[in-house]
Amino acid sequence: MRLTAALAGKPLDRREYDIMKGETRTRAFLADVNANGRIPVLQVGDRFIPESNAASYYVAEGSALIPSDPFDHADMLRWMFWEQYNHEPNIATLRFWLRWVGPDKLNALQKMQVPVKRESGEAALKLMDGHLAGRDWFVGRVASLADICLFAYTHVAGDADFDLARHPNVTAWIKRVEALPGYLPMNV
Amino acid sequence: MRLTAALAGKPLDRREYDIMKGETRTRAFLADVNANGRIPVLQVGDRFIPESNAASYYVAEGSALIPSDPFDHADMLRWMFWEQYNHEPNIATLRFWLRWVGPDKLNALQKMQVPVKRESGEAALKLMDGHLAGRDWFVGRVASLADICLFAYTHVAGDADFDLARHPNVTAWIKRVEALPGYLPMNV
Repeated sequence: MRLTAALAGKPLDRREYDIMKGETRTRAFLADVNANGRIPVLQVGDRFIPESNAASYYVAEGSALIPSDPFDHADMLRWMFWEQYNHEPNIATLRFWLRWVGPDKLNALQKMQVPVKRESGEAALKLMDGHLAGRDWFVGRVASLADICLFAYTHVAGDADFDLARHPNVTAWIKRVEALPGYLPMNV
Repeated sequence: MRLTAALAGKPLDRREYDIMKGETRTRAFLADVNANGRIPVLQVGDRFIPESNAASYYVAEGSALIPSDPFDHADMLRWMFWEQYNHEPNIATLRFWLRWVGPDKLNALQKMQVPVKRESGEAALKLMDGHLAGRDWFVGRVASLADICLFAYTHVAGDADFDLARHPNVTAWIKRVEALPGYLPMNV
């Protein structure tokens, strides 16, 4: 969301919540901010937009990151929904489990899911690599919000022990995103 | 997607694929239609839009189902992303496992996930019920695509042994969706 704001040239203030201390599960957070108890959440005046991809859309609205062609616009959303269903639950979850929770502290179900998420995450990277063969960006001919949303957990997939070097089109695309004017590195 | 087209007044032809016979995993389907091997996919001319919520957005574009206010628009996407992350993987997957695959044919990991998906699916319905307290629709004051995308697997949650009677705001909202002009019942 911070990278989207930077690329779209929009101001954004940042507030941190410590999920390890349960700061997103307090009664006040659940009642006022997000009943789903998750971050990030975008605050707009006194209202809130949970779900990172929806919040990023709000931030990017009106910028070149949102295609005006209806097919490209739907195709951008297609990759953003795909990211939430096929990418994030595998690559981001594995990264959280292995780097933040710790492999020894996973419960039995989580331990059983590790190889499944490894395989599904690898399949997601392979699908991205195939799509990027002969293309610079996921949708149309310029960077869109789909690239930014997919970039987030892809460029740090090494934290979850995925080998990005096996996906050369993905690594070349990561370099293209990092070279976008206004690019900011992620600091979490 | 069919319901979205009916409510938006758009024509749509239907083609069936039998996932149980692997018809979405053939080389031709993966190369030409969706590398992810999943349905539904919307065909627009000779191009395709996978991901049901993205395809539904394309179909609904320009209709009253897509809010013009930027906050409401992002809030609609928020519920559509939430549906894909918190609702579909629990309620729709459990319905598929219990009614199509069959409880005896699940593998060990799937069997272990059943109570987790039951609890997460129940939490999703409870969150919907809480949000609908004092509201007719998920976003703003009229039906939007968020309602249609959430309706799909919510109104058949009983197939996965969820008790919708425990969520009176949800059951009242289901009746409101079914009373929308142009409503078509799901035939799968």
